[in-house]
Amino acid sequence: MCREEAGVMVLTYNCIRSSVKELRVGLLVVGSVALDSVETPFGRVTDALGGSAVYISVAASYFTAPIRLVGVVGNDFSRSHIAFLEDRHIDLDGLQVVKDGKTFRWGGRYHYDLNSRDTLYTELNVFEKFDPVIPKGYLNSAYVCLGNIDPLLQRRVLERVSKPRLVVGDTMNYWIQHRPKDLAETLKVMDVLIVNDAEARLLTQEPNLIKSAKRMIEMGPSIVIIKKGEHGALLVTRDTIFSAPAYPLENIYDPTGAGDAFAGGFIGWLARTDELSPENLKRAVIYGSTLASFCVEQFSVDGIRDLTYLKIQDRYRSFMELSRFDER
Amino acid sequence: MCREEAGVMVLTYNCIRSSVKELRVGLLVVGSVALDSVETPFGRVTDALGGSAVYISVAASYFTAPIRLVGVVGNDFSRSHIAFLEDRHIDLDGLQVVKDGKTFRWGGRYHYDLNSRDTLYTELNVFEKFDPVIPKGYLNSAYVCLGNIDPLLQRRVLERVSKPRLVVGDTMNYWIQHRPKDLAETLKVMDVLIVNDAEARLLTQEPNLIKSAKRMIEMGPSIVIIKKGEHGALLVTRDTIFSAPAYPLENIYDPTGAGDAFAGGFIGWLARTDELSPENLKRAVIYGSTLASFCVEQFSVDGIRDLTYLKIQDRYRSFMELSRFDER
Repeated sequence: MCREEAGVMVLTYNCIRSSVKELRVGLLVVGSVALDSVETPFGRVTDALGGSAVYISVAASYFTAPIRLVGVVGNDFSRSHIAFLEDRHIDLDGLQVVKDGKTFRWGGRYHYDLNSRDTLYTELNVFEKFDPVIPKGYLNSAYVCLGNIDPLLQRRVLERVSKPRLVVGDTMNYWIQHRPKDLAETLKVMDVLIVNDAEARLLTQEPNLIKSAKRMIEMGPSIVIIKKGEHGALLVTRDTIFSAPAYPLENIYDPTGAGDAFAGGFIGWLARTDELSPENLKRAVIYGSTLASFCVEQFSVDGIRDLTYLKIQDRYRSFMELSRFDER
Repeated sequence: MCREEAGVMVLTYNCIRSSVKELRVGLLVVGSVALDSVETPFGRVTDALGGSAVYISVAASYFTAPIRLVGVVGNDFSRSHIAFLEDRHIDLDGLQVVKDGKTFRWGGRYHYDLNSRDTLYTELNVFEKFDPVIPKGYLNSAYVCLGNIDPLLQRRVLERVSKPRLVVGDTMNYWIQHRPKDLAETLKVMDVLIVNDAEARLLTQEPNLIKSAKRMIEMGPSIVIIKKGEHGALLVTRDTIFSAPAYPLENIYDPTGAGDAFAGGFIGWLARTDELSPENLKRAVIYGSTLASFCVEQFSVDGIRDLTYLKIQDRYRSFMELSRFDER
């Protein structure tokens, strides 16, 4: 990073800055770890590996290391799930295992168009009293991704981690409606907010998505991403608007986790490249979209269970093909 | 078009083909001419110039000439509207004026998010018995754009025009639901079908838009465009899928006519360039999106009343900026 001129190292601002950066490493992921039972028009799974921290970590694991997961499970959490996450080089020091508890379970059924779903049951179990304890070794994390949990807990995590380079956070309807004050405080300390279009409209009471994104920027985060499912995603900053296409999948088997896989691909790419320019943020959005597109092609985490960097690059290029046009 | 080699004209296949092409010129537009009364959260207009043939012709007039309009109005159709269309170099030989009739009128109110609307009234008037008579001088038209009218009338137009280079057609929920057989016959003779996402799903009974587009291609048109409003548009052929972004407008004053302005910009560009390669079809989709984006910025046709080619080029480039990302 530091420039050498005529054999002499020139200490530029960026050079000094990058030396400081080196003190902070890795990606911290905080969120739910769950066992999901999902029905879609294409099939069903029972007690399959899920949860925001899992989808985020697995998606990000194709780009960067170490990934440090903070979450909680019960003693019913299968050893094979642990082994899979460890195989993906995900550090599980921060995964609390409650000996006499049961893992968070969610059951849902998607409608025929896959754009809406009914929650059949939610058993919070050990997740109900989740207190994200950050292991000492995680405190120097450079990147932080906060899955969709109580905004108060999200903020508590940030109070513990010392000055990360970038904080990406998610939220959902429930917190917007029931915990607006806590959410408002948490938004002030997030750099990137990732929401879907319905959440954006609910949070800002503004139907126009561009205006909605700008209002969210006024609430704190300097970067807002609005996920629009089959219509792609929008990246909005004070200076940039970027419209990312959706990958044209003919068969979507299970939309569960797509948003978290997006967040994982997004922050994974940023952690890998450690560059926050507008051009690199756009690439990160496409990597996020890429991981989300793989995710929905199979049930649970199977779509992102054993990808290769080559496969990811191929799909990235398909996204380019899909949206490229020229002047004449 | 023909190549000269060592002073001798070489008659290539393309050269001969382009000579044949020259026998067919101009863009024929058939559709409604209307007086619209529209209410949106931003204001209202009464008896403003509208109708599919008007929006298509005006949008296309920035790209190509001659444009030949076929439609019908009553004796209440203002002289100033005629003057405006003539100023745009739109040939009105095919505009029937029914002496003792009234012009088609439509009244609608858009909801606060502008994505849905109520029809307040529809007075078909002279449009009820519209029989598109094609003047002799129009019969050699190279490009044909069929606005949203009875599919039987659309087909009748095509029976009269001799072998156009390209036929672009629109349809709507009403014909899909009430005239499926006539529509099916007409689709067989259309090259490009332009519909919105709801119409695509209704026509094919398929929620997935990519699958839906492929089914529509099986119905006849080799090119299908699905307009998705604030989410842009999809172009689908047997070999190509192209995802065009929507222009990020913060204020949409009146969505009326956006779809027709899209069709006009699309076919206008193709008529101008007379090239149907995949790359040029993509450009045409962006020019269509460009004209639609100008259209919704003001009421009635005001947004596309006096554009310049420079303004259009500028916005085309904004579309590029909006969707461009690179590899690394």
